[in-house]
Parts: sequence; structure tokens; C-alpha cells
Amino acid sequence: MDQKIQMLLATVRKLIRRSALPNLANLLKKTHPADIAHLFRYLDINEQRTLFHLIDDSDVAAEVLSEIEHSSSAQLLAQIDKDTIVEVLQAMPYDDSVDIIQNMPEELAEEILSSMHDDESEEIEQLMLYREDSAGGIMSTEFFCLNQDLSVQQAIAALQEAEDAEMVFYVYVVDDERHLIGVLSLRQLLTVPPQRLLRDIVDTEGLISVRVDTDQEEVAQLVAKYNILAIPVVDDQNHLLGIVTVDDVIDVMRQEATEDFYKMAGASEEELLYGFKSFKIARLRLPWLITNLFGGVITGYLMWLFRMTLEQIIALVSFVPVITGMGGNVGGQSATIVVRGFATGRIDFSTLRKVFFKELRVGIIMGLVCGLVVGLVAVLWHGNIYLGLVVAVAMATAMTVAATTGVLAPTFFKRIGVDPAIASSPFVQTANDITGILIYFSTATLFLDKLSS
Amino acid sequence: MDQKIQMLLATVRKLIRRSALPNLANLLKKTHPADIAHLFRYLDINEQRTLFHLIDDSDVAAEVLSEIEHSSSAQLLAQIDKDTIVEVLQAMPYDDSVDIIQNMPEELAEEILSSMHDDESEEIEQLMLYREDSAGGIMSTEFFCLNQDLSVQQAIAALQEAEDAEMVFYVYVVDDERHLIGVLSLRQLLTVPPQRLLRDIVDTEGLISVRVDTDQEEVAQLVAKYNILAIPVVDDQNHLLGIVTVDDVIDVMRQEATEDFYKMAGASEEELLYGFKSFKIARLRLPWLITNLFGGVITGYLMWLFRMTLEQIIALVSFVPVITGMGGNVGGQSATIVVRGFATGRIDFSTLRKVFFKELRVGIIMGLVCGLVVGLVAVLWHGNIYLGLVVAVAMATAMTVAATTGVLAPTFFKRIGVDPAIASSPFVQTANDITGILIYFSTATLFLDKLSS
Repeated sequence: MDQKIQMLLATVRKLIRRSALPNLANLLKKTHPADIAHLFRYLDINEQRTLFHLIDDSDVAAEVLSEIEHSSSAQLLAQIDKDTIVEVLQAMPYDDSVDIIQNMPEELAEEILSSMHDDESEEIEQLMLYREDSAGGIMSTEFFCLNQDLSVQQAIAALQEAEDAEMVFYVYVVDDERHLIGVLSLRQLLTVPPQRLLRDIVDTEGLISVRVDTDQEEVAQLVAKYNILAIPVVDDQNHLLGIVTVDDVIDVMRQEATEDFYKMAGASEEELLYGFKSFKIARLRLPWLITNLFGGVITGYLMWLFRMTLEQIIALVSFVPVITGMGGNVGGQSATIVVRGFATGRIDFSTLRKVFFKELRVGIIMGLVCGLVVGLVAVLWHGNIYLGLVVAVAMATAMTVAATTGVLAPTFFKRIGVDPAIASSPFVQTANDITGILIYFSTATLFLDKLSS
Repeated sequence: MDQKIQMLLATVRKLIRRSALPNLANLLKKTHPADIAHLFRYLDINEQRTLFHLIDDSDVAAEVLSEIEHSSSAQLLAQIDKDTIVEVLQAMPYDDSVDIIQNMPEELAEEILSSMHDDESEEIEQLMLYREDSAGGIMSTEFFCLNQDLSVQQAIAALQEAEDAEMVFYVYVVDDERHLIGVLSLRQLLTVPPQRLLRDIVDTEGLISVRVDTDQEEVAQLVAKYNILAIPVVDDQNHLLGIVTVDDVIDVMRQEATEDFYKMAGASEEELLYGFKSFKIARLRLPWLITNLFGGVITGYLMWLFRMTLEQIIALVSFVPVITGMGGNVGGQSATIVVRGFATGRIDFSTLRKVFFKELRVGIIMGLVCGLVVGLVAVLWHGNIYLGLVVAVAMATAMTVAATTGVLAPTFFKRIGVDPAIASSPFVQTANDITGILIYFSTATLFLDKLSS
């Protein structure tokens, strides 16, 4: 928490304690909505309610509500009367109200929608039809577009009157049927003679747009690639439906990265919605843990199959953790590089062959080095040169295999249309444990007479 | 690779094969610089050189060069004569040329700097003094600022004449000493009477700026939080030095996320610079692997200390993988949540206590469930109820301990000023392996007589 928020929080708490509500209302007037939203993270539900009711400008309340994390906003809304909710929701851009309504309990959502103006609830219900992670699901429908037959002068006049349009920096130019023709920047508008028509100055080539069903990750990649501030969203007849602005893209990128981080650890970003509810969170993580548990039991069963070998040479057991552990590490590295490469677009199926062979080479080099080190440790520790050899060979082989699994597993998942991030940690680790143990004990069984001598 | 790039690539390759260079030059003229840069990923170095020399507009060449990945641009620059490099570097914004020069071999960089115009090389050397990951390291110095004593009309006139300013959407207003006074959007300029002075309309309250030494991650968080398109950078006397634009922020966020992904897997994003050079990449990953290797050997040594217990009850070995594996999984989940929470600002030291107890509770719940399951497996498999009990207790304890280590390790690293991401995977896993084995075998030794009966 930075100093600014810390001081603000202390003041807010003091004013609440003293019930100095008019002073608090004044303080809120001078505070940026994003900072008010930030405060909500540290306040309990009663303090949140008090604060929220003191915001008398419903535009500010709307901004605060759309900046709060979804887990807190659901909690907060349950404390507020319906009329206030409706009023606040009507003051925010449609795409934000859709987000909030989609996170409400179904009953409340229906009640809220039915108390809204018909045209607003229709617009919102229309937007709710798009997949949440598609361009349609994140686009704003309040944007600035003008007919191509207007003059620059008329365009500037329209711009001066426009009120609600979100973050105006581009003017989208359309024809009479609202087909997207091109785009102009505000600065371009200022630098051409006022009597020229938009159709004559608009840049139609190289216009970048996305379809309404484009995946949000792809939308984010396009905005990042072309360094643009907003991307227009069209239907399959090229009618302009909305725009995705760069601030939404930043949210998407952050959310997609968080999602991948969580998936790679075998968790789900859904748990962010549950705040501190341990049972719900545990229930989200358990299915994956139980799957891995059985993976671990299978690995154990394989060791059990080799118990004759193990009973004869108990020293073998001392290298089980290092062989499975290192396989997991190397596999995790390769998988991370591939998963992240897919997510950022650095790696695709056409470059995958090169990546595979690179990871294979890297795996072999690292396997040889680590095999040598651990082999030496084995010889020095147990004084048996054959044990050193077995451990070294098993380690090098297991690490090389792990590196290739690390590339192949996420690739396989990507191919069959499953998010590769889930493949990296759980599957790779279990697969590597199993192959590591198999390689280790098979090698050991092969050299059994030498080992026990 | 999307269809557009795929088709473009095929055409480019065909034209190169036929040596149809004029046609190729024409094609490049019609292609977006970001798309040309994208092509470079799939071309070999000779094709890259041919293509690059065919771009006759040095502004376009500059854009292409600054969009190419650093690993490829270093390779490409080695193939191009110095005069062309200087010309292209002079055509790009200073912050981009700094990036490229910093990635050159030192000798070449010096040579290039000395062949540039004095004022340009001075500006670049000035920028090179800032830390690469600070606001100063990513800011652009070509931005649009105006004196507060100008009228709106004069401001618009100045705007119409400005050429080079990067992505103009805000006008920064300064006083005679270039102190930052406030900011205006282009749209605001259009909606006030032309004769008013900037000082009277500029918003001075709630102005958001960063200091030149602010960490780039914090800059990105501010831009994301306040939904702004650019943030002004000032020195400690509030002189305006530059701006960080939202497209740079997107790059920073992506880069920081990639860095964290790599660190959590025990790799370094530095390897992206090495392309497909396996030895260099292996050398980057090995130190961490070797550290983990010794962690694994220590775990093995602990098992070895308990070899008397193990020799008596060989069945114990069949649960070693599952107990160390599950500890690693749970610890990894908690660590990921904390590391990502720090990175996005969701978690800070003031909320950490709550997070710790939440993860502890989640760890206990999951430990009990998994302990029960694996205990049952043990009873059914080996027909020994005491073995089931030992395995269940050890599993539940190990998972609970792992969950707390997962919170404490990254917190400790954050406290001592080390990036918490490096703490998550390696340290947590080794620590969990060790405590898991200790807990398991201590419990087993305690119940030794019951187990062997």
C-alpha cells in the first residue's frame, strides 16, 4: 500500500470513528474514484457501506463500483438498496454494468434489469449475449462515430457536443448503413481544412478491426502489436458495434496473465471471487490435487514394483528425490517457456519444431552436467562407482525426457483446444515423476549384480 | 501465426526466391511496420538483411527495428553497415534507440554514438544514465508541452505545427521554468473559448505524475489504476522530463509477467536474448538447477538417515513420491497466489496476515481431505491400518506446512528486497521436500512397532 493510500485510509477511519460524515463526504469529493476503490480493499463491509452511501455523485459512485474487485462489489451490492444500485448502474458504461450484473446472484440481476429503463436493460441484455472473453464481451458501445459525408468542421462541432463517449481519441467514420469505413485521430482533424469531407481524409487502408467473436487475448495482442489506443469491433457484415479501449486491454492482459499463473500452479483465478472463504477455495483446488495425488500413488506403486531391487541396495533410495525433483524442474522450465510463448505470440506451431529441438539440446546439456555432479556425489557418498554410473545415466536421461515432455504436453493441449497453461505443472510433473522412477530403477535393476558387489 | 502473416510470409519468400526486389519493395510500402517486424521472426538472417535494405523510408525502418525482438535486432544490426544503423537510429524516438544501443556489443555502441549528431548522442547518453527498469528508462522525451501563459487558440496552432511528438492525446502545461503545472486533453482544448489561457483551464488538482527513478512496475500499476493514456515523468524539483505512454506500459506489463513466469520456473527472461543458442541458455538455467540438485541430495540424505525404518517397512517407500509431490503442489499454489498478488498490488504487507491465515485454513482443509484419501489407499493396498494412519497424518501435516511456507518464503524475499518470484518454485519445493520427508519418517519411526506387526 503506498503512502498516499495509507494516509487516506487513516483519515477515513478516523472520520468514520468520529461519525464526522459531512467531513468524510467532502474528503471523498476530492479523492480520485480509483483511490476510493483502492480503499475498499482495506475496509470492512460496514465501513464500505458507509463510504459508498456518502458518494453523492452517481457518476463517481459508478466509477468506484466498476474499479472495485468483483469479489468485493458483490458483497457490497448485497448491502445496498435496489434503487441506488439501479441508479449507479445506469451511470456507468454498459460494458461495466454488464460485468457487475453478471457477477450478481441471478435473482438480484433479474430484479435489477427489470427496474431499469427499457432501452438500457435491452442494451445490457444484448451485451450479455456475447461470450465474456470475446471482443463483444469487453467492448464499450458508447464511442464516437461520424458519417463519412460530414465535413471536418461539422465533425469538430459534433465532438464539442458529445458528452458520454468513453475516452475519445479516435473518430470512427461510417457510411449510412453504419459500415466501418475508417478512422481519424483527433489531431488529424485539427490539421486539415475545415470544409473537407471526412470521406476524403479518412485512412481506409491498413484499418485494423476485430470481429465481435474474436477472443479477448487476440484483441489484446493486436492492440499491443500495433500500438493503438482503441480497436473497433464489427460484426460479420462490417457494421461498427463498439470499441475496445486500451485500458480494457490492460485489464485483459493482466487477467490473462493471472489466469495462466494460477493454472500453472493448479489453481483457478475463480478463487479471487471468493475472497477469504477457505472452504470454497479448497473445493476449487482439490480436484486437481486429488488427480495429482493418484499420479503420486502410481509413482509410488512403480517403486514398490522394484522393491526387490530396493531391498538389496537401500542406497538407491537416497537418489529418488533428486531424480524426480530435477525432472520436474527441467520439465517445468520447458513448459513455462512454451506456455508463455503461446500466450504472447512468440511461439506458434510454425516455430515449434525449432523450439522443441532447442529445449532438447538444452535438456541434454543440463542433463549431462547434473548427471555428472550427482554421479560424483553418489560415488563419494556410497563408495560404489556403479551406483554413481546408474544415478548419472538415470539423471541425464530423465532430464532430457523431461525437457521434451515440457514442450510436447502444452503443445498437445493447445492442439486439442485446451488452454496449454493447465498442462504445464500438473501433467508434466506427474509424467516426469513416473518416467524418472522408471528410468532410474530399470537402470539399477540392469546393473544389479555390480551394485550389490 | 495468423493467416494474414502467413500469406504475407509466403509472398515475401516467393519474391525473394525470384529476386523480384522492386515488387518486394512495393509490397513492403503497403505493409504495416509491425507486420514487417512480425515477419522477421520467421526469416533467416539473409532474408532479413535483404528485406531490411529494401525499406527505403528510414522512419518505417526505425519502426520495424524497434518492434523486432532484441535477440533478432542485435543479429540483424551486425549485418548492416554503420551509416544505415545511424540513419535509422536517428529516425526513431530516443527511448527506442537507447533500448537498441544498450543491447549492442559495447564497441559497436560507442562507434555508433560517436557517428551521431552531437545533440542526439548527448540526449541518448543522458537517457542511458537512467536504470533500464525505471520511469526514466522507459520514458519518451519527445512529447507535447506548452507554457501556461498561452491561449487555447495558440495551443491549437502549436498542435497543428507539431510533428514529431509521440502519440499526442494530452497537452502538458508547464511554467517558465518547465515545472509541470497540469494536463489537458485534446478534447478539452476543443470545448473551451479560444481566447482563454491554458493556466485558467488546466486541471492542477489530481494531477498524476511519477518521479524519474520510480520503478517501471509501479508506473504500469498507476497507468492501469487511473486508466490514463500517458503519465508525465518529473525530477525531484517537478521539472517535466518526459512521458511514459500506454503502449510502453503494455510492453512493461508483458515483460514483467514474462519475467515472473520465467523466475518461478527457475529460468531467466534473459535467455530470450539468446534465441536458439543452447549452451548459453543451459548456462543461465544451470546454477539454479545445481542448487536444487543439492536440495534433492539433502532430501535423499534424510531418507538415508531413516534407512533402518525403511529396511523394516519397505512399504513406506511407496508413499514418498506422493508426500513430497503434494507438498510441492500446495506450496506452489500458495506461493503463486502471493507472488502474483504482490505483482498486481492485490496483496501488500498490510493484508498479508489475512492471506496467511486464509492459506493456512485452505491448507488444513485440503490436507485433511488428501490425507484421508491417501490413508485409505494405504490401508487398502498394504492391509495395515497403522500405515494408513502414518501416511494420513504425515500428508495432512506436510500439506499444511507447505501452504504456510508458500506464503512465508515470497514474503521474506519481498521484505529483504529480492524479487519474490524467485522464491516461489525452487526454495519452496526444496523446503517442502525436506519437511515432508522429515514429517513422514518421524511419524513412521514413532509407530515403528505397530507398523511391523
